Amino acid sequence: MNFASDNCGPALPEVMQALASANAGFQPSYGADALMEAVRTRLREIFEAPQAAVYLVATGTAANSLALATLAQPWQTIFCTPLAHVQTDECQAPEFYTGGAKLTLVGEGDKMTPAALQAAIARLSPGDVHVSQRGPVALTQVTEMGHLYTLDELAALTAAAADHDLPVYMDGARFANAVAALGCTPAEMTWKAGIDAVSLGGTKNGCLGVEAVIFFDPAQAWEFELRRKRGAHLFSKHRYLSAQMLAYLDDDLWLRAARAANDRAARLARGLRDVPGVRFLAEPQANMIFASLPRATHQRLHASGAVYGLSDGPLEGGDPADHLAMRLVCDWSIEEAQIDRFIQIALG
Amino acid sequence: MNFASDNCGPALPEVMQALASANAGFQPSYGADALMEAVRTRLREIFEAPQAAVYLVATGTAANSLALATLAQPWQTIFCTPLAHVQTDECQAPEFYTGGAKLTLVGEGDKMTPAALQAAIARLSPGDVHVSQRGPVALTQVTEMGHLYTLDELAALTAAAADHDLPVYMDGARFANAVAALGCTPAEMTWKAGIDAVSLGGTKNGCLGVEAVIFFDPAQAWEFELRRKRGAHLFSKHRYLSAQMLAYLDDDLWLRAARAANDRAARLARGLRDVPGVRFLAEPQANMIFASLPRATHQRLHASGAVYGLSDGPLEGGDPADHLAMRLVCDWSIEEAQIDRFIQIALG
Amino acid sequence: MNFASDNCGPALPEVMQALASANAGFQPSYGADALMEAVRTRLREIFEAPQAAVYLVATGTAANSLALATLAQPWQTIFCTPLAHVQTDECQAPEFYTGGAKLTLVGEGDKMTPAALQAAIARLSPGDVHVSQRGPVALTQVTEMGHLYTLDELAALTAAAADHDLPVYMDGARFANAVAALGCTPAEMTWKAGIDAVSLGGTKNGCLGVEAVIFFDPAQAWEFELRRKRGAHLFSKHRYLSAQMLAYLDDDLWLRAARAANDRAARLARGLRDVPGVRFLAEPQANMIFASLPRATHQRLHASGAVYGLSDGPLEGGDPADHLAMRLVCDWSIEEAQIDRFIQIALG
Amino acid sequence: MNFASDNCGPALPEVMQALASANAGFQPSYGADALMEAVRTRLREIFEAPQAAVYLVATGTAANSLALATLAQPWQTIFCTPLAHVQTDECQAPEFYTGGAKLTLVGEGDKMTPAALQAAIARLSPGDVHVSQRGPVALTQVTEMGHLYTLDELAALTAAAADHDLPVYMDGARFANAVAALGCTPAEMTWKAGIDAVSLGGTKNGCLGVEAVIFFDPAQAWEFELRRKRGAHLFSKHRYLSAQMLAYLDDDLWLRAARAANDRAARLARGLRDVPGVRFLAEPQANMIFASLPRATHQRLHASGAVYGLSDGPLEGGDPADHLAMRLVCDWSIEEAQIDRFIQIALG
Repeated sequence: MNFASDNCGPALPEVMQALASANAGFQPSYGADALMEAVRTRLREIFEAPQAAVYLVATGTAANSLALATLAQPWQTIFCTPLAHVQTDECQAPEFYTGGAKLTLVGEGDKMTPAALQAAIARLSPGDVHVSQRGPVALTQVTEMGHLYTLDELAALTAAAADHDLPVYMDGARFANAVAALGCTPAEMTWKAGIDAVSLGGTKNGCLGVEAVIFFDPAQAWEFELRRKRGAHLFSKHRYLSAQMLAYLDDDLWLRAARAANDRAARLARGLRDVPGVRFLAEPQANMIFASLPRATHQRLHASGAVYGLSDGPLEGGDPADHLAMRLVCDWSIEEAQIDRFIQIALG
Repeated sequence: MNFASDNCGPALPEVMQALASANAGFQPSYGADALMEAVRTRLREIFEAPQAAVYLVATGTAANSLALATLAQPWQTIFCTPLAHVQTDECQAPEFYTGGAKLTLVGEGDKMTPAALQAAIARLSPGDVHVSQRGPVALTQVTEMGHLYTLDELAALTAAAADHDLPVYMDGARFANAVAALGCTPAEMTWKAGIDAVSLGGTKNGCLGVEAVIFFDPAQAWEFELRRKRGAHLFSKHRYLSAQMLAYLDDDLWLRAARAANDRAARLARGLRDVPGVRFLAEPQANMIFASLPRATHQRLHASGAVYGLSDGPLEGGDPADHLAMRLVCDWSIEEAQIDRFIQIALG
Repeated sequence: MNFASDNCGPALPEVMQALASANAGFQPSYGADALMEAVRTRLREIFEAPQAAVYLVATGTAANSLALATLAQPWQTIFCTPLAHVQTDECQAPEFYTGGAKLTLVGEGDKMTPAALQAAIARLSPGDVHVSQRGPVALTQVTEMGHLYTLDELAALTAAAADHDLPVYMDGARFANAVAALGCTPAEMTWKAGIDAVSLGGTKNGCLGVEAVIFFDPAQAWEFELRRKRGAHLFSKHRYLSAQMLAYLDDDLWLRAARAANDRAARLARGLRDVPGVRFLAEPQANMIFASLPRATHQRLHASGAVYGLSDGPLEGGDPADHLAMRLVCDWSIEEAQIDRFIQIALG
Repeated sequence: MNFASDNCGPALPEVMQALASANAGFQPSYGADALMEAVRTRLREIFEAPQAAVYLVATGTAANSLALATLAQPWQTIFCTPLAHVQTDECQAPEFYTGGAKLTLVGEGDKMTPAALQAAIARLSPGDVHVSQRGPVALTQVTEMGHLYTLDELAALTAAAADHDLPVYMDGARFANAVAALGCTPAEMTWKAGIDAVSLGGTKNGCLGVEAVIFFDPAQAWEFELRRKRGAHLFSKHRYLSAQMLAYLDDDLWLRAARAANDRAARLARGLRDVPGVRFLAEPQANMIFASLPRATHQRLHASGAVYGLSDGPLEGGDPADHLAMRLVCDWSIEEAQIDRFIQIALG
């Protein structure tokens, strides 16, 4: 009953098999492997973006930091939410990679509204050398609280950014879960909605450690390549990144794994609704659940071996004093039986 | 007949098997996995350094840059050779990670002498705010030209550094090849010789992508951890780094693989000595050979499918005009038959 | 009638005279001038801090950035208010000089409370490698809205910082105005109140361009010297910085100039209270006034040649729709007659 | 008898007078002062460059670092000589301001040859992500050894850079001395010779502390402005920088002061040629002399109160063992009588 994070589970068997298959003979290093050529082709197809620049790195923080550093100047500020992973969970990697850009926090929660974004942008006069200069907007899809931006919401946000010629980056650590939940195409959720660059996470959805970074404008490709190498994120035995990603993309494995995770979370949420004293802190839309429960229920769960974290989000006013917030994350591998057992214990 | 680099070959079967075995169930993320505890214990045993701080990263450039950034202040200069990997092959990753440290080039080749190091240090007056401040010394063992520092040479260099309280880092991308070639212990080649921090490379010697970084003074551990996270080099699914390293260390696999590579290179060197027109540009001591051959011989080899690179090292004056320098690297997997065939073709 | 800023007025005659006097013969460069020795002695006396490390730079942003970079690690966050000069007016110089530190905004206005500081500190778990690490606290005295921290308020804030071993820096761009207004000693407002480092501004109070930076713990001196040189802020003809500061300190000129500015602002505030429709946005405590006036009054003032800025502070809800906020700053040189004329015009 | 440096002497009376004149009433801050408008116009006339972007900073290191940071990307290397001020005397300010660019040392001395530059450029393959990327060329005119590049030499160097689309920056800390010595126009020595950006130093030639930075392509203006502010080098009371520069440019004061300095150095060099045992280490071409003298002669000079430094340049093999190298710098203020007395003492 492990719901700690989708980075605690195992890799998909197809991914492991692909690694084994890739482990034969010699291959050119540093991204010149034959498998990477296939990855590039496949991702361009999936994104309906034949010109896109496509890269692989091994961690989500690398994807975010390198992409944002390519989009932002050191004297600019990045617009993100106060709960954004780049703000709260990366030990200031974006500040490091950009050479000292600022993160301006928009709104109060995990989702940004166009009005809040417009206000934050408007506060910084262009042409005033004293203030932070306006820079890229960073959105997370699925958000850090398990929410989704609808396609319309994305379009409105990117329009607000475009009004000021600001690029928009999408942190897609859970990109697959979002596409699966929205039932849209990758193109619809990205460049068709005005996104300039995106990461497509593999690590949290059944890979060992691989994230794709896609720039829809290939003009930014070479700078990204230099930043990746200089950041020590260019793998010599790159074939093992390629192999993971290729297997992940084959036969919609990425979507199937995400659907499994989302379905499990939905089942878990359904069950939780009957648990006495439960309160959902966020409407579950993908594979994460934020809810509060009475302390006694938590104790019962932990005594039974359930593993999960306290929520990163603040516990709002509505809860009784003895309630504690939790974050439950379902990955592709969690079994329905474990979910049902969790619910049973929670029901008491 | 691939001698392009030891980062072009496959991973060791034991390492692949360990990855598969590690892929079961849930594990805490970000280095809290059970396998990492075993790696830490094992590396401390191997280095006879029970207090050492031990970390894993996925690339050699990450190991070098993060370790040097931990040892150097931004206003200091790192002393290294003109052929050092950190100088020639990392797109200025050390400058990036240190926040603008300089690399002062010592001597002319791939090996540093104590006299040259002393002279370079002496040129920078301590207490003069205008000049680069003296910083760490970076040595590569095996060097970029396939040479070895003897234990005495290491001791003399670290003594020169210690005279000025400068720490010494060893880039051990081919650490195993060096230990195998010298027949010494890891402790003798590092802290017993005055080395403060070292990387022990797995990637070039049969892993997919893993390098250990060891600080013999654990006081530097926390800063390294912060730098690793901030550099986006802390893996969430860390167990897959741990599993590689643990398998690599088990039963001296790391040494056995290195000995295989070194032996193959020795066989190749022996055979090459009979090739008409050959000239060795460096005395082969580990798994790399730098030699020049007549252009016609190169053409014959390439026509037969041999793959290898032009040497990074300069072609010295002694060669006839039609000679070209080459770099041949043997990894653990190269077969004797391929070496023999290479020689046969070269012999013409 | 210029109230635009205290950086728009002329230098004090005594300062100009000192420059002229200093312009004789040869002097050692880079801070080794005889006048700097006198500055050092004088500042140590004034601060009752015989061990303090004392430096001069030419701009307030340099003082702030270099001091904060000396106190903060790149992976730490600096705690300051949302209106702090370091946050809003320095084009991310602190981020640049620290190598990517973050600024965490405490509270809503220009003054920080101990409770808000404690909450902001508590939000970042020490020992968690993923989050911003706790770093120095930066206070501005006089604040950007013209407020003062009392000595008790300072002591409470530094105590909150000391609970977590965090150093406290005071941006004293208007240090003299604060000392003059509080009627305390420099020591009482700094190290006796728990401040670790402070700038004492000259530029806004009658110098051409000079700020002292004082570290009460001399252990940080050498790093600051290196950062100052590396930041290109060490003057070769340093005597001209020394001469300004020495004249500024002589015979309490710094305090006399500040008292003049504060008195003028008090006169202006008194007069403004009778202006129809006026509303003070902040209680004036030093040499700055933030107030809102009807648009028609502004138009009359501008037509008469009055120069002043729109307030940086937000216009709060209580004002009628046709009101606009202004910032009026008095420097030492503004004449009473100009203030009286300003009031007369405002009265209509 | 002070020949320590041209940053040890006093400021020109005209410059001091201009400061006093500028010290009246209120002026807009941060470069919007009326005097700066006149400086801009004047410099564009002097350089015959009506579109040039023109800025003032207070130190030579700021001019160099900010200009190079505007021209270089962090992953590029700057080509300069081993004796370049940016390499030897700025505590790695260029590395800091560029965010980690490297300095590649071209040749052995203070002057770069086109062949050496071409070779250094050629060594770095464009498009290879592993190596330092080619960046700007930095020349110093007058060089650090008191030499001059002829206009033809400059043209040949900038042509070599232009072959690879690399910009060329001229460190003109002693720009006036060079123009005076070459008898050319500022335009001929800069953009007509292929220079992209240049500093025109005031500090070493009779100002208190001011350097102009000129970009002949105004497209780089805004980035420079942001870098200057972020580097804390934008002066609030900017009029005092403007006033210095304007007085310096008026009536060719800059050239007259430089001619005075050059003439004094020529007189000193003529006299020195008769001193027993003297050897010139560099042919004096502007206001600096590098020569070696017997230790006994040095002792006599120092006993008489002469002040000068040991040369930064290496003492070459030709000197007797008891000789020591010296650097003598003449500024505009040094009197002929002092020079004659120095010679007399040296003659013994």
